[in-house]
Amino acid sequence: MKLKFTKMHGAGNDFVVIDAVNQHINFTPAQWKALGDRRFGIGADQMLVVEKSHTDGVDFRYRIYNADGGEVEQCGNGSRAFVKFVVDKGLTTKRAIKVETMCGIIEPVLESDGSITVDMGLAILAPDQVPFDSSQLSGEIQGADTLWPLEIHGRRTLFSVVSMGNPHAVQVVDDVDTAPVLIDGPAIEHHPRFPKRVNAGFMQIVDRHQIKLRVFERGAGETLACGTGACAAVVAGIRRGLLDTPVKVDTRGGQLSIAWEGNGNAVKLSGPAVTVFEGEIDMDNLTN
Amino acid sequence: MKLKFTKMHGAGNDFVVIDAVNQHINFTPAQWKALGDRRFGIGADQMLVVEKSHTDGVDFRYRIYNADGGEVEQCGNGSRAFVKFVVDKGLTTKRAIKVETMCGIIEPVLESDGSITVDMGLAILAPDQVPFDSSQLSGEIQGADTLWPLEIHGRRTLFSVVSMGNPHAVQVVDDVDTAPVLIDGPAIEHHPRFPKRVNAGFMQIVDRHQIKLRVFERGAGETLACGTGACAAVVAGIRRGLLDTPVKVDTRGGQLSIAWEGNGNAVKLSGPAVTVFEGEIDMDNLTN
Repeated sequence: MKLKFTKMHGAGNDFVVIDAVNQHINFTPAQWKALGDRRFGIGADQMLVVEKSHTDGVDFRYRIYNADGGEVEQCGNGSRAFVKFVVDKGLTTKRAIKVETMCGIIEPVLESDGSITVDMGLAILAPDQVPFDSSQLSGEIQGADTLWPLEIHGRRTLFSVVSMGNPHAVQVVDDVDTAPVLIDGPAIEHHPRFPKRVNAGFMQIVDRHQIKLRVFERGAGETLACGTGACAAVVAGIRRGLLDTPVKVDTRGGQLSIAWEGNGNAVKLSGPAVTVFEGEIDMDNLTN
Repeated sequence: MKLKFTKMHGAGNDFVVIDAVNQHINFTPAQWKALGDRRFGIGADQMLVVEKSHTDGVDFRYRIYNADGGEVEQCGNGSRAFVKFVVDKGLTTKRAIKVETMCGIIEPVLESDGSITVDMGLAILAPDQVPFDSSQLSGEIQGADTLWPLEIHGRRTLFSVVSMGNPHAVQVVDDVDTAPVLIDGPAIEHHPRFPKRVNAGFMQIVDRHQIKLRVFERGAGETLACGTGACAAVVAGIRRGLLDTPVKVDTRGGQLSIAWEGNGNAVKLSGPAVTVFEGEIDMDNLTN
């Protein structure tokens, strides 16, 4: 079987995007894994499959498969690639597109500058809901935020803790390029006060509307651009009184923009999606 | 500019193959680098560009660009992909194809089973030509070979030394899967008796016509399949009296077959080339 696909990326997080509206797709986990292999297949972090939705008022559904063959949640960078794909391929004429995902129904919007805005939901700030165990620990108040001191490799380090559906521990550093992300990242990720582990964010304040950010992701190591990490860092920075909405976030994979109007409002993430190339693969050529 | 390309691999060594007979190609090193990037470009170990030859009696010329943007020699896995490409695309009806490369004019042959045979030239066996400094060292004779004892992490280890245009130090191990390739590889590569460093081969004898091989490549670390490493290991095994030509070589990237009729004869390597997918990229979409 010949499969048409589009290779895309959102801030360096790359996807094989497949039109399953016009192609019949029914692959085994081994085939998804083979497609994701960067030498023997097409190669990508994830495969994103666009289908029709069977729910009233919803335009599409997408599924995401990891390079290990399993189906997963992914609602940041993937949803931007999705919007660019369905618009470029003429699968819709809308600009605000309702789509069913494993994270629920979302409605990303294609902006006039080509960037795509996604509603990332509410930031969860109660420590026990992050989850973060703050028992017998005294925090330091900064602005509207509480900073929690943890000992990381013998140094007392102050963290904001925020959940965007997944837990984040954010610290302010003088210089992200020299920050010990790869050394401290694993120690923060596995700190016993985070019962579900944590994503470790290292944020450098450039000015009140711009930060530089590196994130050591739970279970993945440092990644080029972490959408929820950007949201968590900006929420923490605004609450600490260091930033004002909207905030540009420079990551190693590209620039994102985060807007947040404060408690009770959803965090909005805008960023690019790029089409790299179009391809066609004969599934019989895949090794497995 | 839109560029058509074919993604191929030879035993896991992957290539973006470009027809420059029918397309005008004139890219900067930055563009080659961008094409080779696995997230922001197409992604491959190397890009292989097929051109017409201007030399009488020669069918084609190919150039190879590394993922770092520079033009390089590569005459094993690349030449197999080249042959499959020019035959599949109808650029030639020949099966033995003369092609100009940075290694000189070679003539790979498409076999009836779809594998491609490449003449890898003579094995160079004189230690000083490998180059290997054997001064004040007593070797052990085994068959027609001399084994050289070197101390690697405190253990005396016996090596055959062979050059296939690049230097190789080959040892026999009981089990390649448990051999300390990643630990001993760097120590062998940088052993002071190899003035130009060396590729470290770990060969497990399966029977007189089959080996399993892992190679720690000079400057690259362990690779999926090293063509010259397979040649060097089989030459060493035949000289030691452990193997008979032809020999199947199981590498992590796939199976190669090596034939060698002894001193004075060229080493012949046969192996597969696989087309993975066809693509088209808008060069303006590449991040630089």
